[in-house]
Amino acid sequence: MTGLNKGSRKPFGKMLYNSKIKRAWRGNEGDPWNIEMLVEGKPHRTIWLAEDPGCVQIIDQRALPHAFVVEDLRSLDDAFIAIRDMHVRGAPLIGATAAWGLYLALIELEKKGDNTLPQLIVAATRLKAARPTAVNLAWAVDRVVAKLEEGGSICPASARSEAEAIVEEDVEICRMIGVHGVSLIEEIAARKPGETVNILTHCNAGWLATVDWGTATSPIYHAHARGIPIHVWVDETRPRNQGASLTAWELGQQGIAHTVIVDNAGGHLMQRGEVDLVIVGSDRTTRNGDVANKIGTYLKALAAKDTGVPFYVALPSPTIDWAISDGCQQIPIEQRAEHEVTHIQGSLPQGEVATVRLTPASSRAANPAFDVTQARLVTGLITERGLCDASESGLTGLFPQQARSTVSP
Amino acid sequence: MTGLNKGSRKPFGKMLYNSKIKRAWRGNEGDPWNIEMLVEGKPHRTIWLAEDPGCVQIIDQRALPHAFVVEDLRSLDDAFIAIRDMHVRGAPLIGATAAWGLYLALIELEKKGDNTLPQLIVAATRLKAARPTAVNLAWAVDRVVAKLEEGGSICPASARSEAEAIVEEDVEICRMIGVHGVSLIEEIAARKPGETVNILTHCNAGWLATVDWGTATSPIYHAHARGIPIHVWVDETRPRNQGASLTAWELGQQGIAHTVIVDNAGGHLMQRGEVDLVIVGSDRTTRNGDVANKIGTYLKALAAKDTGVPFYVALPSPTIDWAISDGCQQIPIEQRAEHEVTHIQGSLPQGEVATVRLTPASSRAANPAFDVTQARLVTGLITERGLCDASESGLTGLFPQQARSTVSP
Repeated sequence: MTGLNKGSRKPFGKMLYNSKIKRAWRGNEGDPWNIEMLVEGKPHRTIWLAEDPGCVQIIDQRALPHAFVVEDLRSLDDAFIAIRDMHVRGAPLIGATAAWGLYLALIELEKKGDNTLPQLIVAATRLKAARPTAVNLAWAVDRVVAKLEEGGSICPASARSEAEAIVEEDVEICRMIGVHGVSLIEEIAARKPGETVNILTHCNAGWLATVDWGTATSPIYHAHARGIPIHVWVDETRPRNQGASLTAWELGQQGIAHTVIVDNAGGHLMQRGEVDLVIVGSDRTTRNGDVANKIGTYLKALAAKDTGVPFYVALPSPTIDWAISDGCQQIPIEQRAEHEVTHIQGSLPQGEVATVRLTPASSRAANPAFDVTQARLVTGLITERGLCDASESGLTGLFPQQARSTVSP
Repeated sequence: MTGLNKGSRKPFGKMLYNSKIKRAWRGNEGDPWNIEMLVEGKPHRTIWLAEDPGCVQIIDQRALPHAFVVEDLRSLDDAFIAIRDMHVRGAPLIGATAAWGLYLALIELEKKGDNTLPQLIVAATRLKAARPTAVNLAWAVDRVVAKLEEGGSICPASARSEAEAIVEEDVEICRMIGVHGVSLIEEIAARKPGETVNILTHCNAGWLATVDWGTATSPIYHAHARGIPIHVWVDETRPRNQGASLTAWELGQQGIAHTVIVDNAGGHLMQRGEVDLVIVGSDRTTRNGDVANKIGTYLKALAAKDTGVPFYVALPSPTIDWAISDGCQQIPIEQRAEHEVTHIQGSLPQGEVATVRLTPASSRAANPAFDVTQARLVTGLITERGLCDASESGLTGLFPQQARSTVSP
């Protein structure tokens, strides 16, 4: 792994890649559409165990799209920092990184002969504090702890086994979202044979936010693999620009035609008939189908409704909050730091990454990170179990075990 | 004027200002709300004749908000470049700069003893080519040429007189938009005594886009002058960020409370009841009240409609195109350069202004500059003659001479 160690930054033309490490976790060989997410033409995931089993590797996403950096995680601290400082982001990937973080913690503890339940709980508590509002983080950590406690075997091998299970489940959920969602794209393609299907997406609900496939992007990747001519409008997604920096990069690596637009432009493109379908992700979905997603999603949903463009939300079922049924009233919206609005990162002409200030020094900024799109604006939901209406009956039709179990008072 | 010559850049703390130059064109002394636009506490306009009558001065707006640069225009070429390269922007200010450009051209021609109608027309043609799609540019140039031709006096004094008339008319139009529009803010303030009125605006329809007052900002400045507690949500307005760089700067100089937000955030703020009123400008308004304005305006209008927030458009009547009545079908939308999306300008920590790339090098971008907001989404229009519905009957009620004169076939 020389050349791809922690902190190494390589321009893409010079990127080194050791394909052997990929074979270990390559899956889906029996899938009829056996595609995988590509980096420089080679299959890739966002997190994996290195040849050295004391090392978990991630893509340090802070450097994208300007450089591709693989980072070695060798300790609980490394995993903690990677989550806290957003080297990795996206609920499923945060969960996976936390699970692998416990594995790394147990390697350290085993070396000291201190791989006990109390020490495991100390490590778990520390990891959960890395991003306290990330539901998947606590969920993944608790799941690994419970499994080890249950099995009575507080050791790295058991943690590894559970981390791998979490990762493979996420990959399968994302793959199935694509298998179901691609039907929407196929229907549009059938209505306009020989023409390109134009899909608009917001933020990055791509494979970089998960382990593989992504959520909103999974139907897109499946459509591309089936040879449907597609083109993606990529909202840049201020303030953190995950669209311009991550989604555009993913699609480019996969060879999918795409065009970056400012967040202001999508409504105009819909008015002009240049968007056939909108697919976005979801950070939290209520039992009645309200969707909390990246700030600005609501505005695109309004434009889609106004212009008759189908607006779909792709979501893994773990993001459904069955206990609430009014997104605007019940979902707290994270207020993030002003500097994400007042400043932006990009690459200078010589390639160096720099942060510049955009606003007058004396101007304040506000930075709500998410907004809520009411179910009435959502054409349908795409889950790993299939498509459904954005409604309680739609969701409980796919997840009948939730039908009467946790109705909020 | 030492220290404020062409190209000089001064941090605000050290800015030099010669107040004498302002007295020459200071107007509105009899106005009951005699406020004027401020820079560092001193009244200012966007264009003025210097003490040396061979020199017209402008604010080089490309440097804002990071530096305040006053530029000397001493020739037709200087004016041409200032318009073409967007040292000045905004339809009214472009018109004013072109009118003053003809004055400078005639000074040059008079020196050569060549101040003839054919030479004037050569200069006029050149100026009009600086930004061919700017309607106000051609209008102002043609008006000065016609006046000089009519008067039979092709000389700088006549051009100066007409340029001054154009400028003063624009100032008066903008002032009257404020006088009428402030009633909307007063009504809201009366409904919530002691509370702050929250106004959202998009792009820069401020005094920097005109000569003084601005259009969308004029009611805001009048409300502030009358002591109404106001706060302005400033959409940053990607891709060119005129909100973050110009509107925020203007409001800050005037001492008006404001908060910069990304373009994605306005809908969420409206959902949460944090916006009392939206006021935007207009680049072109159809006879039935459809509004072409900066890209993204349509999305904010949709959110205002969805949440019951009043959505007003401030427009000087010269921007009404009485010949058309379907904005989406009849208004061509300018497609601007990709690099405005893929790159952005800001200031580095040491204050140097730099441009950084935001997107992967291989990703393309699209950049429609305007969108159309249909009259059905507009609560009302604010013109220099008063408020009206966004409809043909509303507009012709204020401008009865247009009632049957130019109905499109």
